[in-house]
Amino acid sequence: MRIIEAADWRVERKVDYGTREQLETVQAIIRDVRKEGDAAVLRYTGQFDRMELASAQLRIAPAEIEAAYGQVKDAFLAALREAAANIRAFHEKQKRTSWMDVQPDGTLLGQILRPLKRVGVYVPGGSAAYPSSVLMNVIPAQVAGVPEIVMVTPPSTGGQGGIDPHILVAAAEAGVKEIYQVGGAQAIAALAYGTETIAPVDKICGPGNIYVALAKREVYGAVDIDSIAGPSEIVVLADATATPAYVAADLLSQAEHDAMASAVLVTDSRPLAEAVAAEVERQLASLPRREIAAKSLEEYGAIVVVPGLKEGVELVNRLAPEHLEIMTSDPMEWVGAIENAGAIFLGEHSSEPVGDYYAGPNHIIPTNGTARFSSPVDVDMFMKKSSLIRYSREALQRDGERIMELARHEGLEAHARAIGIRLGQMKE
Amino acid sequence: MRIIEAADWRVERKVDYGTREQLETVQAIIRDVRKEGDAAVLRYTGQFDRMELASAQLRIAPAEIEAAYGQVKDAFLAALREAAANIRAFHEKQKRTSWMDVQPDGTLLGQILRPLKRVGVYVPGGSAAYPSSVLMNVIPAQVAGVPEIVMVTPPSTGGQGGIDPHILVAAAEAGVKEIYQVGGAQAIAALAYGTETIAPVDKICGPGNIYVALAKREVYGAVDIDSIAGPSEIVVLADATATPAYVAADLLSQAEHDAMASAVLVTDSRPLAEAVAAEVERQLASLPRREIAAKSLEEYGAIVVVPGLKEGVELVNRLAPEHLEIMTSDPMEWVGAIENAGAIFLGEHSSEPVGDYYAGPNHIIPTNGTARFSSPVDVDMFMKKSSLIRYSREALQRDGERIMELARHEGLEAHARAIGIRLGQMKE
Repeated sequence: MRIIEAADWRVERKVDYGTREQLETVQAIIRDVRKEGDAAVLRYTGQFDRMELASAQLRIAPAEIEAAYGQVKDAFLAALREAAANIRAFHEKQKRTSWMDVQPDGTLLGQILRPLKRVGVYVPGGSAAYPSSVLMNVIPAQVAGVPEIVMVTPPSTGGQGGIDPHILVAAAEAGVKEIYQVGGAQAIAALAYGTETIAPVDKICGPGNIYVALAKREVYGAVDIDSIAGPSEIVVLADATATPAYVAADLLSQAEHDAMASAVLVTDSRPLAEAVAAEVERQLASLPRREIAAKSLEEYGAIVVVPGLKEGVELVNRLAPEHLEIMTSDPMEWVGAIENAGAIFLGEHSSEPVGDYYAGPNHIIPTNGTARFSSPVDVDMFMKKSSLIRYSREALQRDGERIMELARHEGLEAHARAIGIRLGQMKE
Repeated sequence: MRIIEAADWRVERKVDYGTREQLETVQAIIRDVRKEGDAAVLRYTGQFDRMELASAQLRIAPAEIEAAYGQVKDAFLAALREAAANIRAFHEKQKRTSWMDVQPDGTLLGQILRPLKRVGVYVPGGSAAYPSSVLMNVIPAQVAGVPEIVMVTPPSTGGQGGIDPHILVAAAEAGVKEIYQVGGAQAIAALAYGTETIAPVDKICGPGNIYVALAKREVYGAVDIDSIAGPSEIVVLADATATPAYVAADLLSQAEHDAMASAVLVTDSRPLAEAVAAEVERQLASLPRREIAAKSLEEYGAIVVVPGLKEGVELVNRLAPEHLEIMTSDPMEWVGAIENAGAIFLGEHSSEPVGDYYAGPNHIIPTNGTARFSSPVDVDMFMKKSSLIRYSREALQRDGERIMELARHEGLEAHARAIGIRLGQMKE
């Protein structure tokens, strides 16, 4: 890894917005699904997933979900269950309730919080089918109280369709009962507008390829969507007390994701910088995904040596990373100064995979600098609020003239009269 | 107003996404402002607002803000101050704090809540310059603790520039000190990317014309934006106990906004329906904005007679209105059954303008059916969260093997090794 001494270091990563051709393909698919429903969904599944299905085969039968349990290892199931319990416990702590402020005259103001009614979770197929992402998308919705959570995922190609049993088990453990084997833009269109078989949802979340991302962007407005995730990032902020082998391992665990991933060490210690660089080379050599990791480190990785940790924190805030690990003598000292970071891992035992899989906080976190203004997935994202306003007769009598003054200033006479007609009757 | 008996009534309103030509104009403006900074901002201000300004004139001087107080009526200022105090009090109650869960072994999990650092509020010019909207956009950000709130608004055309004193006073009362006289897509571009005079922000909010809406959509990702508002809506759910004159006045106060606004009465009482229809005609005749209101009622308004209030509530949930008034003998009875409504007004004294101007809850509310999945503007929208994870040595020793199991299942060996290297050292 290159070692640089520039506290204003920054790397540009291009966001893939797709080509005009890809967008037109997606728009055509959405148009067809809106018009033809199941028929279009099945046709595109035949075309893209090389799988000929009938409407009745779209939904995965309960027996198939049950059978999936026989196809996964006990150790996997045990680990998945513990992870699910931790994720559920952490998200339960986020849950909020409706509230109101009642005043002696009978006036009542408040916010009613409710879960969304129906949420769709997209799960990619093939090697990107991560059971951990199923838990991270579904459990917050379930904790929020969403009564209908539906999952869509492309059928395995080349066989008799069906879905990876680990994905089915993760879905079942998270509480999903409604699962369809449909993927791509046709799945997003079906979730947004509904078909004969798939009822429309209020929000679509989960990662996918460029066609899925473009389709989500297109249907936004008809339904809500989560944010479009960019490549994964880690910044490690470390001083001379950090263990070079741990730092190197954590940087590599990010770099192995894909060649666009970014792993950066920020440190005030030149000796640590050099030791980590050597450890990265050493550990990289035996990694199964070493080609991907090496490319990521070369293009988007760096070890930045800064004059002090204060300057290091400033750089972190400018980078606004998805994941931040703080490995200094007293990590908590710096938490208050970190303005922009999606998830903050403190101390040498808090390796990022602890959060990716297990500890409880969500692993779907803002990328590409958007931690400046957005947040990891949580229960709030599956709830909505309604304002509640009950004005009493007394309150209206007290405040009516002022409300009319403001309405008239804005040239909205009918607004003023809606108050005036009530004040008039009170005087009668 | 037309009276219909169809509990599945629904009106389609087209959302204005702008033309390709408008989009290309906006894209060119954004490109120029990113490249040329102030120079492009000033050139477009000359072109669109017919106002030749120098960079140093963009920011409104403190003396001008102070002078504005001399140009507004005392009654306006008094009403504005009371409204601001109510809005602040309601939003203060929403404020949340960071939290954490500490475990005996030293493990700590939590969420850190922080305000955004810098927010830009767009205020339209001319007759759409509403002081009430300044309060509704700025105060939640201020209560959230956003340290830098900046306002942009087009210079008054045809004169010596400057800004409506009522807008300046509203901004000052809400606590804004940084105000620029710049509007349109050039203002949005300046807020998103920054110029020599205007520093970039993290989030842009506030309403505007189609150019402003298109520009917000274009810069989304570089900064956060609020939702794009559609035309305003009210549904009144009433039974035979409602006062026809009040219902009619409230419907008209919505219809006067613009010809695309929608005002709907849903009732189980045919006599009420007829009385309200007659009252609407009577009150409409003397309204200054009667042409707009009449067009809105004709195209997007209706009185829907339903078999019972239960069916009425079902219709309300399908319409998912921005504003809902419940004028029945016991309004609170129905609140729990309302799934989709941005703001709910209870009882005959809670006329919508009470909430538009004064009571405290925000008047920026999801339109066009999006109350199904989104919420009125509140303090949460100006805050962001970071997850906090401190795993202890003991916890990692306990959970490490399970984390590795999940990572290996997903083919991410470097993730597993980041844990493994630590477990290995613990055993040494």
